[in-house]
Amino acid sequence: MTESSALLTDRYELTMLDAALLKGTHDRECVFEAFTRRLPAGRRYGVLAGTGRLLELIERFRFGDEELAYLRDNHVVRDETIDWLADYRFSGTIRGYREGEVFFPGSPFFIVDAPFAEGVILETLLLSVFNYDSAVASAAARMVSAAGGRPLAEMGSRRANEHSAVAAARAAFIAGFSATSNLEAGRTWGVPTMGTAAHAFTLLHDSEEDAFRAQVDALGPGTTLLVDTFDVEKGIETAVKVAGPELGAIRLDSGDLPKLVRQVREQLDSLGATKTKITVTNDLDEFTIAALAASPVDSYGVGTSVVTGSGSPASGMVYKLVAHRPRGSEGDWIPVAKKSDGKASVGGRKHPVRRLDRAGEAVAEVVHIIEEGETPDDNGRDLLVPLITDGEVHREHLGVEGTRRAREHRATAMRELPDEAFRLGRGDPVLPTIFA
Amino acid sequence: MTESSALLTDRYELTMLDAALLKGTHDRECVFEAFTRRLPAGRRYGVLAGTGRLLELIERFRFGDEELAYLRDNHVVRDETIDWLADYRFSGTIRGYREGEVFFPGSPFFIVDAPFAEGVILETLLLSVFNYDSAVASAAARMVSAAGGRPLAEMGSRRANEHSAVAAARAAFIAGFSATSNLEAGRTWGVPTMGTAAHAFTLLHDSEEDAFRAQVDALGPGTTLLVDTFDVEKGIETAVKVAGPELGAIRLDSGDLPKLVRQVREQLDSLGATKTKITVTNDLDEFTIAALAASPVDSYGVGTSVVTGSGSPASGMVYKLVAHRPRGSEGDWIPVAKKSDGKASVGGRKHPVRRLDRAGEAVAEVVHIIEEGETPDDNGRDLLVPLITDGEVHREHLGVEGTRRAREHRATAMRELPDEAFRLGRGDPVLPTIFA
Repeated sequence: MTESSALLTDRYELTMLDAALLKGTHDRECVFEAFTRRLPAGRRYGVLAGTGRLLELIERFRFGDEELAYLRDNHVVRDETIDWLADYRFSGTIRGYREGEVFFPGSPFFIVDAPFAEGVILETLLLSVFNYDSAVASAAARMVSAAGGRPLAEMGSRRANEHSAVAAARAAFIAGFSATSNLEAGRTWGVPTMGTAAHAFTLLHDSEEDAFRAQVDALGPGTTLLVDTFDVEKGIETAVKVAGPELGAIRLDSGDLPKLVRQVREQLDSLGATKTKITVTNDLDEFTIAALAASPVDSYGVGTSVVTGSGSPASGMVYKLVAHRPRGSEGDWIPVAKKSDGKASVGGRKHPVRRLDRAGEAVAEVVHIIEEGETPDDNGRDLLVPLITDGEVHREHLGVEGTRRAREHRATAMRELPDEAFRLGRGDPVLPTIFA
Repeated sequence: MTESSALLTDRYELTMLDAALLKGTHDRECVFEAFTRRLPAGRRYGVLAGTGRLLELIERFRFGDEELAYLRDNHVVRDETIDWLADYRFSGTIRGYREGEVFFPGSPFFIVDAPFAEGVILETLLLSVFNYDSAVASAAARMVSAAGGRPLAEMGSRRANEHSAVAAARAAFIAGFSATSNLEAGRTWGVPTMGTAAHAFTLLHDSEEDAFRAQVDALGPGTTLLVDTFDVEKGIETAVKVAGPELGAIRLDSGDLPKLVRQVREQLDSLGATKTKITVTNDLDEFTIAALAASPVDSYGVGTSVVTGSGSPASGMVYKLVAHRPRGSEGDWIPVAKKSDGKASVGGRKHPVRRLDRAGEAVAEVVHIIEEGETPDDNGRDLLVPLITDGEVHREHLGVEGTRRAREHRATAMRELPDEAFRLGRGDPVLPTIFA
């Protein structure tokens, strides 16, 4: 994927640029911040995902001949602005949370220092990435908690746009899922892939036994057989007959799971298949996963609910201009904030810190309003790392390696949270956000 | 975009192929059907979108060296299967609904006639496209009804994955929206684009008046000024002062809209800006749009709710094997169906027809179970058109032209629906689905 990402954006980002160029305000030095206004109703925390993907997209945010021709032919901006866009390459500096970090309302996780023109035109793309990827990661993290250590596989590709599906697989992996069904996520992001067969495979063959035999011949007895196409009890009998007691796993994709899982475990044991695992995949979400805690399930496959953010498909993230000053000025920054009814923002450059108690448990999100070059006087955990410096992307955040690091950081960050963060019931954000 | 779409798929599609190739069942002649199990809770109808996008993706569903290398290196399938995939090109026949058609549960809108191997590996991709695009179109159509003829613009790119955003803009346009903020949707699908400025543009300047003047200088007095950054009343006063009474429109993105809109209309009129339009964009959905029916709003901008399907971000569409027979056989097709608890399906080749009364109003979705080559004996409207014949895509469904045709067909199909289809309150599907 080396194609331009530049038109994955709202027209008004470019018309603002157009007007600012005419007025000469395009090169004012600016600080923009991305943060979430609120967590989805009842959620206690969010998990940030998307940073690694976004940094690659920012590198591809270049206007080539085709993009410029579209803008020119459709009179989106003036010719002078077309010329400016032809040379555009982000030259600013971005600091932010590590990907995988836990987030709370109001605290900036992505802070852009750039001339107005360079910072404003990234808005749509960066919000698209963070809003979706973090919606998935935030839902997935709750499912991981609910599963209590049992592995989860993401298999919702068919319930999301074909490209969203790849991003969702990556975000769920960062949030602690073990694998995905999505092959492109395997190729691009190094997420382990899984999956064996659907009901269609059984229906194609003259009998369930023929289908199971074909699958075991191709994939070995360690495969997972889907046993609920006709009758689960007969399906399991046939599965163990065909694969022997070394059958890897059986999959249940329908039925009253808590009751069914127990019966299936007993049947497998009685057939000598005591090591054969049970995986369940029937419309699960964090609540139905939690309801299976006492059932002998070995692993979960989750589809629709994880790729659609389990009821909250966008994260409420916004990107705001918070300070500016004339170009080349050594003078003070002008903090700015809008006052719109219900959407007021806090002006000024910020630096978020997670304050911990002596036991290392998080107690507050403290957002310091600071001057440029200042570091907050706070012994909490500093949440900012460099992402782009003077236009150069810090490579450790990218690709397979960046994805793996994000998954590790998520585990570390979640260990700091108090126990009540992991209750599934509705509640307020588990940490208060304090502006200091 | 000429890149391969082949890995935008679930691993199990390829492992099923792998096993079927070994068993020799891969070339059984098959019929697969896509349909929705149910409409989202309380919805009366759905609007199909995605067909034009999908047909292009099917043309790009080819396994190149990079895709094959990934599958080989990760032992996803056997070497013989790699060889088969290297030559893969869909050679079957697909008939289905026109894009933009209204749909109901159980009625197949996409019917694939192909060898098992060729048909099964399209499953994930086709469901990804239809589930997302139709979720957006179905939500958007309700908003269009609620707006009662006033134009709507889709501006939710930032609340959806960056590629979903493009598909969403297209789907909303098919469903009757007039425009989008998304530039890529303009370039790729010919959707008209719109948008002028955000709050950041006002905050950048030394005063609201400076910002408005910069915008009017660049975009002319016919532009839309965003007047709620600080104080709406002062904002409007300044807007008319700067642009004059020929100001095109003002935009409201916050506040208690029904009340505010009336005040704003009065103020504009009192300033002589009687032709200046009012567009509102504050977290709208079909219900808040309906609540503004009596307010002097001229147009709506809709974001999050339309790109996330207004509470139903996936459409519950599935793709099922319904009949097969040995390759080259002149014999009878074997209808097949699974019996899984809660997921039972209806076997056999089908042909859906929309039955109309004498006044041309739709009264039932009739799904005929037929033999190959048979046409249903029914004087209802035939819902099937050719989409791909022997591997060749019917070009009229593609690109800008296909998108425009889908939008027109949606208007035609919706005119057949009884009035109760357009009530926003919860209810059952407005047509019964009858298997005949």
